[in-house]
Amino acid sequence: MTFNSLNDLYKKKTPRSRSSYNESVKIFPGGISHNIRFFRPYPFFVKKAIGKHLIDIDGNKYVDYWMGHWALILGHSPNVVVKKLDSQIRQGTLYGTVNDISIKLGESISNAIPTSELLRFCTTGSEATMYAIRLARAVTKKRIICKTIGGWHGFNTDLMQSVNYPFEVDEGVGMTGREGDFVESIPFNDLERSIKLLDSVKDDLACIILEPVLGGAGCIPAEIDYLKGLEEYCKRNGILFILDEIVTGFRFNFGSISTSYHLDPDLITLGKIVGGGLPIGVVCGKKEIMQVSNPVENKNKERICYIGGGTFSSNPLTMTAGYATLDYIRKNRKTIYNKINKLGDMARNGLTKIFSDFGLKIQVVGMGSIFLTHFLSNDVKEIKSASDVALCDNAALTRYHFSLMAKHGIFFLPHKMGAISVAHNETDIQNLVNATGKILESNILGTKH
Amino acid sequence: MTFNSLNDLYKKKTPRSRSSYNESVKIFPGGISHNIRFFRPYPFFVKKAIGKHLIDIDGNKYVDYWMGHWALILGHSPNVVVKKLDSQIRQGTLYGTVNDISIKLGESISNAIPTSELLRFCTTGSEATMYAIRLARAVTKKRIICKTIGGWHGFNTDLMQSVNYPFEVDEGVGMTGREGDFVESIPFNDLERSIKLLDSVKDDLACIILEPVLGGAGCIPAEIDYLKGLEEYCKRNGILFILDEIVTGFRFNFGSISTSYHLDPDLITLGKIVGGGLPIGVVCGKKEIMQVSNPVENKNKERICYIGGGTFSSNPLTMTAGYATLDYIRKNRKTIYNKINKLGDMARNGLTKIFSDFGLKIQVVGMGSIFLTHFLSNDVKEIKSASDVALCDNAALTRYHFSLMAKHGIFFLPHKMGAISVAHNETDIQNLVNATGKILESNILGTKH
Repeated sequence: MTFNSLNDLYKKKTPRSRSSYNESVKIFPGGISHNIRFFRPYPFFVKKAIGKHLIDIDGNKYVDYWMGHWALILGHSPNVVVKKLDSQIRQGTLYGTVNDISIKLGESISNAIPTSELLRFCTTGSEATMYAIRLARAVTKKRIICKTIGGWHGFNTDLMQSVNYPFEVDEGVGMTGREGDFVESIPFNDLERSIKLLDSVKDDLACIILEPVLGGAGCIPAEIDYLKGLEEYCKRNGILFILDEIVTGFRFNFGSISTSYHLDPDLITLGKIVGGGLPIGVVCGKKEIMQVSNPVENKNKERICYIGGGTFSSNPLTMTAGYATLDYIRKNRKTIYNKINKLGDMARNGLTKIFSDFGLKIQVVGMGSIFLTHFLSNDVKEIKSASDVALCDNAALTRYHFSLMAKHGIFFLPHKMGAISVAHNETDIQNLVNATGKILESNILGTKH
Repeated sequence: MTFNSLNDLYKKKTPRSRSSYNESVKIFPGGISHNIRFFRPYPFFVKKAIGKHLIDIDGNKYVDYWMGHWALILGHSPNVVVKKLDSQIRQGTLYGTVNDISIKLGESISNAIPTSELLRFCTTGSEATMYAIRLARAVTKKRIICKTIGGWHGFNTDLMQSVNYPFEVDEGVGMTGREGDFVESIPFNDLERSIKLLDSVKDDLACIILEPVLGGAGCIPAEIDYLKGLEEYCKRNGILFILDEIVTGFRFNFGSISTSYHLDPDLITLGKIVGGGLPIGVVCGKKEIMQVSNPVENKNKERICYIGGGTFSSNPLTMTAGYATLDYIRKNRKTIYNKINKLGDMARNGLTKIFSDFGLKIQVVGMGSIFLTHFLSNDVKEIKSASDVALCDNAALTRYHFSLMAKHGIFFLPHKMGAISVAHNETDIQNLVNATGKILESNILGTKH
């Protein structure tokens, strides 16, 4: 089977999606609202999503590893969330003011994460990271933000730097060209070079913000010594250490990765899982830092640091879905994390073996329940950074993900890591490995072996 | 009755809210996630919201004019929305990919708004305005953004300038101090001075963005000649004219205010109403502008302008609620807008009369179904700008709103304009006017008359 014939197969199975896509391009630039959701020849249109499945408008069923941008740790439309939403939608979707459900969700987060002495809700992850760096600047009275190369913290203008390869080029048109003046980018997992760069801007450095696992840039865990080294540098120099855990929060354990790693970040940003499938962003942190945003006890009447909020912040639907999710996970946390972490290992091991059986040089990266297969090239022997990922055979990865989708009903958003939910099971992982074997047998990836 | 005794009355009626607030300050800085939601002595905690009512956890019932930050034009939990959400929550809250409901909502917006030749969904209004100015910079290759003094476009760093009085002071700590380098602020409703300022930065001017009715800054309609003058200036000089209609979109008519005013903006931002009570932001505009964000037809392979998107963009819950809302309004648009616009007139006229009966100098501003009472001072004879509002007797306004809430079960978020929904009726407006009369009789506002 050739890749072209696979393309034809996909088209044959998705005539309604093709027709919807043709409508969609009349409404949205490129037919999408989020660029990463486009793939060739056109994305399938989802009709419903239940448990581990996406079902498209042509009736095709996919085992979903994209899982709502990795947010849906309990799978799509889990009963515990649906039941609570069912009653909440009748009692209001947007109070526009304070409510007890926010306290419950806030408490759940703070009880689980030592760093979260105080927190604020907003509506998206992009907002959360924007607020976190605003806090850092407010508290330190310094201006430079340090991020890692390939680090993705959402679309906010402040952090749209060094996201995509080639990392030194402006992230898209429409910026002033000056946004980078106060952003320093350091190489992920390279402590020595990172510290050299940090030293060069130390006098005006407000914070380091980084993902403990690079998410969008290729599912690459930070080495623990790298994290510890950066944290130590921060503590020594009065710089804020911020973990962006929008992806990793409540993904590996009930709370923050900082607990298992014995880290002590000043601020943590959250999103995805804690919203239970509804829009959320969270910035949480040490009391003395968070309090600079408190308008009530603002004695010197200086302007405070504006963080959190927005029309939809703390809306009762998100609060309800988030609380239902965290409450369920808390009560079943051992079973849940044991299960999905083990399935993650099974996927990484199974995929590594099958690729190696076919003589392909790949590396299945990730940790716990998130994973991604990179096709190594002559230039890359090991994946340690976003730069390594950029030099992989990413065309092969696209073909691999597309093959899984078109022929085997297994959905990864092309190029993006997969997330295992409670709704997945061992058979699903076995099926993924077997499907990978069949794809390799058919030599459809066009890789040498 | 004194204001202190009114405070006591409020406390007596809200013991559970007091206790929740005491919990809340342990979780959130100031006990809130959004600063404007705090008022003294503490805000009541909402338990449910149905139709025109907010019901707090002590069982107090308020006729709500805050209406979810003015988003809920059909009232809280309208049947048409609940019915659709009821089925959607069982079919997925976050597909993470494309879906037909987005097309339906997108089409509804584009059919109603001529400017909306193409659009993108995001999750909040703050994101929408951020993307709009990014587009303007991308298309014009210029850098300066012009906004009006007092104009509120959300919490994004790019537009956090000249929002609060005194307008020339930085909007809160935590900025670099350089954000204002590329923002020029012009006086609202003063065309001559505005154009002078525009002329001074014309060579690097990318766009003008403004609200056709200042929302957060005091419910002040732009004079039509002001809007036309700015638009004409933009067209003449190759500058983008952007209307921020997050508040006004679908508020006065089925679509944009630009249609009734015969304006032709290049871009429009939307939010609030079009989300049907769920989180949304929209940037829509002329095809040739919006297309610079199209990754599919990007022939020269330059980086495109990144706009729209985010994990929660186009999520099926928001799309469902938004479409249900717009579809219902479209089918009943004559009745709906006649009704709520008429109720708005009734409120403005009734309040103007009652205050004048008591010899108070006030001005009830607004248009259509939004309105706000300003207590004029010796320095202000007429409200035309945010600066005028800053010089009003805002302490009196707070006491007025608090009195309505504590004694008469009528809720305005203190200082903020009110929005009338389909769920309100003539009796509600009459009650508001009568309650105002009683408050004035009791002389509780401490104003002279």
